[in-house]
Amino acid sequence: MVDIRLGDNQYGKAETRLVRVDRGGERHSITDLNVSTSLAGDLDATHLTGDNSGVLPTDTQKNTVYAFARDGVGEIEDFGLRLARHFVDTTPTITRARVRIEQYRWERIQVEGAPAPHSFVRAAGTRTATVTYDGARSWVVSGIADVTALNTTGSEFHGFHRDRYTTLPETTDRILATAVSARWRHAGESDWAVSYREAHRHLLEAFADTHSLSLQQTLHAMGERVLRHRDELVEVRLELPNKHHFLVDLSPFELDNPGEVFFAADRPYGLIEGSVVRDGAPEPGLAWW
Amino acid sequence: MVDIRLGDNQYGKAETRLVRVDRGGERHSITDLNVSTSLAGDLDATHLTGDNSGVLPTDTQKNTVYAFARDGVGEIEDFGLRLARHFVDTTPTITRARVRIEQYRWERIQVEGAPAPHSFVRAAGTRTATVTYDGARSWVVSGIADVTALNTTGSEFHGFHRDRYTTLPETTDRILATAVSARWRHAGESDWAVSYREAHRHLLEAFADTHSLSLQQTLHAMGERVLRHRDELVEVRLELPNKHHFLVDLSPFELDNPGEVFFAADRPYGLIEGSVVRDGAPEPGLAWW
Amino acid sequence: MVDIRLGDNQYGKAETRLVRVDRGGERHSITDLNVSTSLAGDLDATHLTGDNSGVLPTDTQKNTVYAFARDGVGEIEDFGLRLARHFVDTTPTITRARVRIEQYRWERIQVEGAPAPHSFVRAAGTRTATVTYDGARSWVVSGIADVTALNTTGSEFHGFHRDRYTTLPETTDRILATAVSARWRHAGESDWAVSYREAHRHLLEAFADTHSLSLQQTLHAMGERVLRHRDELVEVRLELPNKHHFLVDLSPFELDNPGEVFFAADRPYGLIEGSVVRDGAPEPGLAWW
Amino acid sequence: MVDIRLGDNQYGKAETRLVRVDRGGERHSITDLNVSTSLAGDLDATHLTGDNSGVLPTDTQKNTVYAFARDGVGEIEDFGLRLARHFVDTTPTITRARVRIEQYRWERIQVEGAPAPHSFVRAAGTRTATVTYDGARSWVVSGIADVTALNTTGSEFHGFHRDRYTTLPETTDRILATAVSARWRHAGESDWAVSYREAHRHLLEAFADTHSLSLQQTLHAMGERVLRHRDELVEVRLELPNKHHFLVDLSPFELDNPGEVFFAADRPYGLIEGSVVRDGAPEPGLAWW
Repeated sequence: MVDIRLGDNQYGKAETRLVRVDRGGERHSITDLNVSTSLAGDLDATHLTGDNSGVLPTDTQKNTVYAFARDGVGEIEDFGLRLARHFVDTTPTITRARVRIEQYRWERIQVEGAPAPHSFVRAAGTRTATVTYDGARSWVVSGIADVTALNTTGSEFHGFHRDRYTTLPETTDRILATAVSARWRHAGESDWAVSYREAHRHLLEAFADTHSLSLQQTLHAMGERVLRHRDELVEVRLELPNKHHFLVDLSPFELDNPGEVFFAADRPYGLIEGSVVRDGAPEPGLAWW
Repeated sequence: MVDIRLGDNQYGKAETRLVRVDRGGERHSITDLNVSTSLAGDLDATHLTGDNSGVLPTDTQKNTVYAFARDGVGEIEDFGLRLARHFVDTTPTITRARVRIEQYRWERIQVEGAPAPHSFVRAAGTRTATVTYDGARSWVVSGIADVTALNTTGSEFHGFHRDRYTTLPETTDRILATAVSARWRHAGESDWAVSYREAHRHLLEAFADTHSLSLQQTLHAMGERVLRHRDELVEVRLELPNKHHFLVDLSPFELDNPGEVFFAADRPYGLIEGSVVRDGAPEPGLAWW
Repeated sequence: MVDIRLGDNQYGKAETRLVRVDRGGERHSITDLNVSTSLAGDLDATHLTGDNSGVLPTDTQKNTVYAFARDGVGEIEDFGLRLARHFVDTTPTITRARVRIEQYRWERIQVEGAPAPHSFVRAAGTRTATVTYDGARSWVVSGIADVTALNTTGSEFHGFHRDRYTTLPETTDRILATAVSARWRHAGESDWAVSYREAHRHLLEAFADTHSLSLQQTLHAMGERVLRHRDELVEVRLELPNKHHFLVDLSPFELDNPGEVFFAADRPYGLIEGSVVRDGAPEPGLAWW
Repeated sequence: MVDIRLGDNQYGKAETRLVRVDRGGERHSITDLNVSTSLAGDLDATHLTGDNSGVLPTDTQKNTVYAFARDGVGEIEDFGLRLARHFVDTTPTITRARVRIEQYRWERIQVEGAPAPHSFVRAAGTRTATVTYDGARSWVVSGIADVTALNTTGSEFHGFHRDRYTTLPETTDRILATAVSARWRHAGESDWAVSYREAHRHLLEAFADTHSLSLQQTLHAMGERVLRHRDELVEVRLELPNKHHFLVDLSPFELDNPGEVFFAADRPYGLIEGSVVRDGAPEPGLAWW
């Protein structure tokens, strides 16, 4: 008889699309979210025998997202905390909840130079939050995704290790482009809105004004910049695809190409991943789980 | 013996990704394009016998896009015209060329409140141009795509035709959301940059300040607004998906929902397509081909 | 006063996702569809004044798709005809309907070598149909999409027109790969199931056993093969992206590469479009509309 | 002075698209891969100062993938092992490599009932492998992705925990549909081809013939089935989205709906994740890293 057991598991409702309209006065505002919830705990019965008495349906998780939005959403970190605590604190079998939220950005449409009171146009970039709660402690990670940035100069790449498969020429001037995915871990409860706005700003500023010898160096500079300015944050994790822009060889057409005409490639792409941590940061626990 | 013949045909290179950096002085600018070319003409030989003597390779079309960018791109309508005329005027078999261009938008990164000289972040929305040339005449259509707009109020839908399959309740207040695809036909050569900027502005302004009884009415108002303000344009075509936002029924949770909590649906979606035309507009010819 | 009028327009419900289970006996079968409907007619009022009395809601169109499926779906061409006729014949303002259907393929899961009675796994490739009806006549176009095919040899490309931007080397042996989109027009009412199965088969067989001097030649051979074998069909339209596979230069590593190691590129890609028509075919009318 | 340090990091080349043609004799075969490599080790210098002397360029990693394919690819687990060992064993700074490979499936085109010798059509589903090597040990995880499966009956869901936000009705007959992502950990070096074929088969068979009281129960049955039949495997991890199919309410049209007409929803979806482990399995180490 082979002995086999259930290992780690969780379940939830992914990608509940919630749009919240705040109609206070003449001037409306909107909150546009994609919410995913995951619950873990004593779930052996449903796996082993199909006894669902400990399972809060994923449909209920979705309903809860909508019902909780009735009272307002606020900052997504707070909304995630409310949801995560609710699931663990009120469901007997559930000992751990994770809530992941993406928030899409909207700007007001301008009509004859003035912001329209209830009209919006979608802007690029996504704000993110991941909240984890285990019944006693909570962990909050905030971030951005899909923020595509590009420097037309100020980027070099040379002096790298060469082996028999290396053909890449060295360069002292290239385009550096990436789609920033960054997440930052809070020491405790922050002023989420300010923290997001400032971390976002510092990441882009560091990307722009770092003279780069490698995308790794830029990554580190971005994370370090955030930690130097934001005491409430203890760690920044970044995933930076290197979206290659290749200088086109125009010499067959008797043309030079002094850093002006590029082919933007899709695949393959470099992928640089790294973390920057404040010394003495508390253990991450379930933050990145 | 069955008689079978070659019908309409064309061929080209799709989605050539071109990034052009203008390095004049300290302050760089970028032009980020996706260029697709299609050629038609006397192409029977390659189809029927594989005789390619009349075929300009699609690889050459790609090369031409890059080589022409060496002299600068300028407005995408002009770049399309240069390419289309080149292909028809210099390739013996080719009698018709179409060039489709998408231009992606970038904004300067701000560093401590000032625009960085060579750093950019991608913005939402795409500018488009389609140029067609037949050796004698040319047609230019400009447009926008992927501009997602939303009104939180000022939209009604009622008084519609009902049959036995109609269950939709009437509403006097709903969210109206769409991803605007609009294209406008020029009477001749316009000031492309001004025309684009103003048509874009008028479309969004009309979306924002039209009190809507149907998305069709909003579509017509958007097209009409552009034509009333831009004498150089003679027709506007719009494709407006109705991105449904359904009010969530919170009554099972003993909560009301006064137009605040919505589910943003993916599929199915409404799709409203229409054209608004200036009286006496010249025949479209190959403009929409 | 500028005079502006409404041009061509239509509206409908796009991408209604319908799965129909046929439970006759122990052995179930499924029909998995994506249905899009578009209606045109006397729709000036809703565009100009927001008077919706002539508008059958897109929500009703969706309901109709589901209600009609209660009686069974059958072949998608028949289902499209039922829907298109219903919308035109029962809605006073509607004079033209188009129904586009995608059908996804499923195969039975095998359990110990025998087909399971009610278990399926999704297969690649999509069957399509577009039906148009104007109150008097109907047009039916059937097709396939997303059928990716590849020949590892038997493809050449040389003898093409060269200009100053041509750098492509000639080749007598290359990979030819494409994602077949093909649509065929019926003379009248066909045995849709047989017609689809056989047209699909002939397209792939012609792709496989045509020694190709250009993708255009392959395209023509594919369309011609279908028309030669299927009398009920009068025209075949094909869109064949040339999914380039570039031989990798391994010489820097002191390796040859005799047609074995390829880089599969994403963009740009060639795009070959063409039609093959039976002589004396009836006018297409609204078939391709 | 704030003290900040570099945390975990890695870098590599993602999504190198390799197609390998084996031309042995008349009958060709193809191997179609998407290869991603990630390296970790002593990489502080490039992050902190831009000193790249320890960095093997991602371009070189791509070259290596192509060069190694010259000798043949074989099973993707072996190809991953060759690459991972090479990077760690020959690059002084690199102490850990991970290689992720996706293999796309192709079938031979049939011409008049016989398999064509060098013509293929893409089939659904992806085979995967992830290999990790730290200079001393290696870990191999194999799997499948994008295998969409559906049972039209034999699935129930009832007896679940209810709270004030629960509105879901209980059901004793529903459609169960999912897109299987499964990965299985090997105890050592397996016969990769047999192991993949059999694990794939057992997963689908267990999906088909498990009468399901919850998707969790199905998940566990799938993992358990694999472990019971394949001694070389010690753990199976599954991610199963619950692709909801909602029975359409046809009663407004005076129609019943005895489990026949369904709406296939996109979002939100359930997401069930779990692991099944053989007792006494060796520690996973870096297998899932």
